Amino acid sequence: MSTELKRGLEGVLVAESDLSHIDGDAGELIYRGYAIEDLAREASYEETLYLLWHGELPTEAELTEFSDAMAVNRELDEGVIDIIRELAESGEEPMAALRSVTSAVSAYDPDADAAWDDTEANNRKSRRITAKMPTALAAYNRLRNGNEPVAPRTDLGHAENFLYMLNDEEPDEVLAETFDMALVLHADHGLNASTFAAMVTASTLADLHSAVTSAVGTLSGSLHGGANADVMRMLQAIDEDEQDPVEWVQAAIDRGERIAGFGHRVYNVKDPRAKILGDKSEALGEAAGDTKWYEMSVAIEDYISGEKGLAPNVDFYSATTYYQMGIPIDLYTPIFAIARSGGWIAHVLEQWEDNRLIRPRAKYTGDRDATFVPLDER
Amino acid sequence: MSTELKRGLEGVLVAESDLSHIDGDAGELIYRGYAIEDLAREASYEETLYLLWHGELPTEAELTEFSDAMAVNRELDEGVIDIIRELAESGEEPMAALRSVTSAVSAYDPDADAAWDDTEANNRKSRRITAKMPTALAAYNRLRNGNEPVAPRTDLGHAENFLYMLNDEEPDEVLAETFDMALVLHADHGLNASTFAAMVTASTLADLHSAVTSAVGTLSGSLHGGANADVMRMLQAIDEDEQDPVEWVQAAIDRGERIAGFGHRVYNVKDPRAKILGDKSEALGEAAGDTKWYEMSVAIEDYISGEKGLAPNVDFYSATTYYQMGIPIDLYTPIFAIARSGGWIAHVLEQWEDNRLIRPRAKYTGDRDATFVPLDER
Repeated sequence: MSTELKRGLEGVLVAESDLSHIDGDAGELIYRGYAIEDLAREASYEETLYLLWHGELPTEAELTEFSDAMAVNRELDEGVIDIIRELAESGEEPMAALRSVTSAVSAYDPDADAAWDDTEANNRKSRRITAKMPTALAAYNRLRNGNEPVAPRTDLGHAENFLYMLNDEEPDEVLAETFDMALVLHADHGLNASTFAAMVTASTLADLHSAVTSAVGTLSGSLHGGANADVMRMLQAIDEDEQDPVEWVQAAIDRGERIAGFGHRVYNVKDPRAKILGDKSEALGEAAGDTKWYEMSVAIEDYISGEKGLAPNVDFYSATTYYQMGIPIDLYTPIFAIARSGGWIAHVLEQWEDNRLIRPRAKYTGDRDATFVPLDER
Repeated sequence: MSTELKRGLEGVLVAESDLSHIDGDAGELIYRGYAIEDLAREASYEETLYLLWHGELPTEAELTEFSDAMAVNRELDEGVIDIIRELAESGEEPMAALRSVTSAVSAYDPDADAAWDDTEANNRKSRRITAKMPTALAAYNRLRNGNEPVAPRTDLGHAENFLYMLNDEEPDEVLAETFDMALVLHADHGLNASTFAAMVTASTLADLHSAVTSAVGTLSGSLHGGANADVMRMLQAIDEDEQDPVEWVQAAIDRGERIAGFGHRVYNVKDPRAKILGDKSEALGEAAGDTKWYEMSVAIEDYISGEKGLAPNVDFYSATTYYQMGIPIDLYTPIFAIARSGGWIAHVLEQWEDNRLIRPRAKYTGDRDATFVPLDER
């Protein structure tokens, strides 16, 4: 055993993976060798899932079969809707509600009793989990606003159907494509903390539902998935104060505050996903005739890049993209989760091809030889 | 970044901890310096929780205040009971049900909105989570058997009250003390996989409910918490076949099967908890006038220790201890969870004293330069 302490496991290689690779110096991200820019522009989320889970891009026939198998699994059992209703009525936070529901859907999974290494059952479970999470999130949002859930449709794509269930209205093509692209961009990203949590859970041969539930909970933390909502709340605060964004950010930094949406454990330059989403954010602003959110973001980016040498990450531009799409701010992180479910599952399935229990050690720094004194003598 | 692959993180030190220490060669386990043998014999589970969470053994006044604060939090909100009812009716597995309910209780936690570093709120949440998990498990077991849940009582100890809620009958002193001791023995054990999963989740500043939910899911795997139930099922199979246990085990090994309850990533000799539980298992058998389960276990232990050089772990003797207490076999792992919740929480609280995001890397072994071919050209 090494005696070197590896807090945060920074730079520690815990697995081999064929799934995604980040070149943090070049600002490049690939999924199975494909540049994220190509996938964002040309591949649907379903196509990207197929690539991640099955190792190659599907043919048209394969994609149709795969997408259909997902679409028919969008619907939630009545018992799950009842649980969502309880959680929405109790005022539960969106990420916590999504964590509980992701866990609870296992009760209704027809393959719940399958062996951990049953590949076909795992493929079906993977499709079901990823198909049902958006339905659960949309139902939760409707119920907490006093509306009944909108049943999923099988004739719409994965991204399009989510927006339809969320708003009880079919989205236009620009919105559907933008949202689909956002899902592709968030689908995988190496061993981030939530993916690693899924792997630790799955390493005991716990099931896919347990692994994805761990990941949702992990993503909920403010050092991980919570940042995109924090970015938007910052921009809103600047807007409400009618302040110059650079002056506002400058003052916040002087107060010792951390500016959400900048810096990343892995990227040393601008996150390629931030570039793509920045363009989308600009396009949405132009289409609506108001580019203020985009301009505010660019001013902050220029200032922080110049002053602090920190580049924006994916959260910085997903914030205004989602905002301009009319998505409630506290759903940004749950949307990150429904996208990343594809990557979580991909890493678990890959790990199970040659599983090993993930069990590190702690360096013990406490007492070694305490003498027990009975309660009545203390 | 090191290029050495650390699969399973075996022997990797990821944290410093004052909580528990295992000397795998000497077969010793301590919690904050106190020998597990002393704690098992003399301390209650509540006393052990106080030690783990607050760093020292409580005085009588401190223990009374702490135990009372837990007892008044045993009750579940009606909404949580409704969720348990749904899960029990759907036939959900016990560990999956406990995972979903542990997650869902956050919806009713009065401190749900507290900051991650609010120490007092975290203390209250810790007590609530650990107080409510046994109530949830007992309610689930009653509901799946067609009985209404038994409301918790505040005048009974933590262990005693669980057995009361499970059976709608106050346990006798021997049962209550044995169960309390089992909870103490399972309360903490360094950075096992479930504890590490809780830490990965909490490292993003996700909340305690997320961390404990991750841990429950992780414990459900057959390489971790599932082993105690597997041991009992093996012993039952041997008993039903009226076979000699050594011959049965010999044949299973010859077929290439792994014998549950033996070997451990950390212990090289007999797990000290197995010694203590072995004695309890024997005492319960003697009290009931039938020591067959204990004798069967000893015969298997002697054979595997001699033949394979593998020593029994905690699961090997907790199996027959719980069985002779009349606890349903598929509740053994959930009971492990309600005991270990104390350790999970202790490690999370300790980590938050100086938090660092846990985010390792994978060694990328996939394609680096794939050319995207549009769908209609594939």
